[in-house]
Amino acid sequence: MDEFGLIERYFTRPARHPEAVLGVGDDAALIALPGARAQLAVTTDTLIEGVHFPQGAPGYDVGYKALAVNVSDLAAMGARPLAFLLNLSLPEADPAWLARFRDGLFALADAAALDLIGGDTVRGPLSITITALGTVAPGAALRRNGARPGDRVYVSGLLGEAALGFFTRSGRLALPSVFHEQVLARLDRPFPRIEEGQALVGIASAAIDISDGLVADLGHILKASGVGAELDLRRLPLSEAYDAAFPTVGYDPALVFGDDYELCFTVPPERVKALAGITPRFACGFHDIGGIVAGSGLVLRDGQGVYTPARAGYNHFDG
Amino acid sequence: MDEFGLIERYFTRPARHPEAVLGVGDDAALIALPGARAQLAVTTDTLIEGVHFPQGAPGYDVGYKALAVNVSDLAAMGARPLAFLLNLSLPEADPAWLARFRDGLFALADAAALDLIGGDTVRGPLSITITALGTVAPGAALRRNGARPGDRVYVSGLLGEAALGFFTRSGRLALPSVFHEQVLARLDRPFPRIEEGQALVGIASAAIDISDGLVADLGHILKASGVGAELDLRRLPLSEAYDAAFPTVGYDPALVFGDDYELCFTVPPERVKALAGITPRFACGFHDIGGIVAGSGLVLRDGQGVYTPARAGYNHFDG
Repeated sequence: MDEFGLIERYFTRPARHPEAVLGVGDDAALIALPGARAQLAVTTDTLIEGVHFPQGAPGYDVGYKALAVNVSDLAAMGARPLAFLLNLSLPEADPAWLARFRDGLFALADAAALDLIGGDTVRGPLSITITALGTVAPGAALRRNGARPGDRVYVSGLLGEAALGFFTRSGRLALPSVFHEQVLARLDRPFPRIEEGQALVGIASAAIDISDGLVADLGHILKASGVGAELDLRRLPLSEAYDAAFPTVGYDPALVFGDDYELCFTVPPERVKALAGITPRFACGFHDIGGIVAGSGLVLRDGQGVYTPARAGYNHFDG
Repeated sequence: MDEFGLIERYFTRPARHPEAVLGVGDDAALIALPGARAQLAVTTDTLIEGVHFPQGAPGYDVGYKALAVNVSDLAAMGARPLAFLLNLSLPEADPAWLARFRDGLFALADAAALDLIGGDTVRGPLSITITALGTVAPGAALRRNGARPGDRVYVSGLLGEAALGFFTRSGRLALPSVFHEQVLARLDRPFPRIEEGQALVGIASAAIDISDGLVADLGHILKASGVGAELDLRRLPLSEAYDAAFPTVGYDPALVFGDDYELCFTVPPERVKALAGITPRFACGFHDIGGIVAGSGLVLRDGQGVYTPARAGYNHFDG
């Protein structure tokens, strides 16, 4: 069963506190407390050994990434990171691994300015659940449902780097060694687009972070907004490393692998100039890859015609 | 390694957002958003199959209790439940089990008025992490650090019922069958003391919920408050079922087993009358079991002298 279908089918129902609870189904839920000058964005993700990271993965990278994937959800809402809770299930208390895990976790907590405010430590199979909290001005959060026909579609940074890192580490891709460090770092230690997300408030009409791949994540925007999109694959932001791999891997790693933790967002034509105004502040760049259209579905064109990727997005309950 | 020692040793450091982040180390953390007329209490707990509930446990009970243990933490803060997030790790998507899990979860969510606002579903060993959010007036939250010498020590309801349920189910206790349903219900479906906790705001000087046993949990109040306590075990609120088991089990199930999800709280002498004023509203009753003293440590007396329980509290990283 589909992860999203599973949640929708079993766990969706009307809210009891509609005055306080907003944004369910977005990258983060939003809590509006009476009188507050900021809303609270709340998001949570679980990483399981053997599913989301390999057995024996370095503690530092596991700690860093477990927090990074949650902070990326806050970034996609345009929220300012505030705090997080850590639920750690450990088969045994190995002080050396735990110290490295802590160092990776706090490296990102420091860089992104989050406090650890609670959690739970239990004995069990290795897994990490983090719940991250951020603040955003009332009504300012970037949602998934605001894209309209005529909006341009953008992504930040580079796509497919994490995929190249994964394929390089697993030996499935013989990338020139000069690129190894770069793609492995993008896989292991992505830095969430926190400042970028906050700067897009008032400019982007919809946003999401790319965790499951561009096709799947832009698909969430399209579904929530009731629109379609057409992308020109020749405009995808790809690195020199990707160029070197392209004859072997084609477009798919940039489209359906995920784990890039870049932002995908839409901008109405009248705000494209405002986007250009903030772009110089961010080294990652914002790249126009296509446009929103009426209707539904995503059409990819590669210059020869319509392109269909091999598989659409990562899903834990696929077959 | 000790669960609490592990967290303290590896994960404690000063807050970056001291204006917003309060109450760390209490039953829930408190978030104070600028201008808000309520603070947000946030708590999280993980339940693992084979550790916190047996393999093959009924889905309904697992769903109910996973939420109940978190709502109990909100109750201990005097908070009003608002919403929760659900992280579910499932080895496979079994629709029948999942439907029963959902029914148990939502039975308590309905009774306690919480919205499900987010979460994550992944494939992995069966475990459930719930993060619960509640609201409390600024400065009103019941904390662990407010007990002072001369305060009286109270518990709500009955102690040791969940232990009797556990021993009955595992065949280690031959309790008269007339009591089985009662003690198993207390083990499987404890109802958090939500209304009681909110009513204790302004009356109790400190509070905690009894998840790890009275000795361990009152111990957290004593440590956080820098005080000691003396209890008279003859005043412990024990049921008829417990009276029947007492010759076999003695006081320990009421002292060190946990899982009762009652409240333990302290009340200054000048507010004992106020407590008496609200007591008739609550069928569970509030029971004076001793007093706070200067110094440190917990002294238990049973009429014959000082009593020492067999073990002090449940801890996942003991031996």
